[in-house]
Amino acid sequence: LYTDTVMDHFMHPRNVGEIKDPSGVGEVGNAKCGDIMKMYLDIENNVIKDVKFETFGCGSAIASSSMATEMIKGKTVEEALAITNKDVVDALGGLPAHKLHCSVLAEEAIKSAVKDYYDRS
Amino acid sequence: LYTDTVMDHFMHPRNVGEIKDPSGVGEVGNAKCGDIMKMYLDIENNVIKDVKFETFGCGSAIASSSMATEMIKGKTVEEALAITNKDVVDALGGLPAHKLHCSVLAEEAIKSAVKDYYDRS
Ligand code: FES
Repeated sequence: LYTDTVMDHFMHPRNVGEIKDPSGVGEVGNAKCGDIMKMYLDIENNVIKDVKFETFGCGSAIASSSMATEMIKGKTVEEALAITNKDVVDALGGLPAHKLHCSVLAEEAIKSAVKDYYDRS
Repeated sequence: LYTDTVMDHFMHPRNVGEIKDPSGVGEVGNAKCGDIMKMYLDIENNVIKDVKFETFGCGSAIASSSMATEMIKGKTVEEALAITNKDVVDALGGLPAHKLHCSVLAEEAIKSAVKDYYDRS
């Protein structure tokens, strides 16, 4: 049902937690299941120096966010914005069709956190 | 949003895992979010000696199942069947309304595992 990469990121999620005094924070909800995702960005000179996430969401949401944070770390804000839900799912080696809505949460949280960063600056 | 008891059972879930050669196994799916819950029972003389669960579900599903397994351990099969979704949510000190469907997964998985036990005996 789940690829080894999904299981790895579910069992050992990367970048879980909170950033104090972040450059931007995004919080988004999943209309389908009611789960919430929070994403913190630490941005310096337009580069994402650090990123952390918190969620009460399911295994697929955890794996997607873990992978997404790894993908945007060290990237410019513009590069991070270009990463789509599909890129994350591809990097995970796929997700079951009925769990794709969970991975959307990661992309939306990043976009929401970048928006918050732009709003502040 | 979530009570201390929910957070405790989410961060430190009890009875996670698998039972080899179980007396009964239940596997149920959540139509709303697509998550799956698997429940293993070890029953001796009509008493639930051990119970374990596996899920890819969200924090609320994990907390509910953790609490539910604690509630049925050492109980008779009939006592376990009498435990409802509402009992589990009450023991957790409540869940947000849009997450109640996650706690139903725990009750259904127990009932499905008991049914499997009955079918085998
Ligand atoms: S079911 Fe809610 S995030 Fe996956």
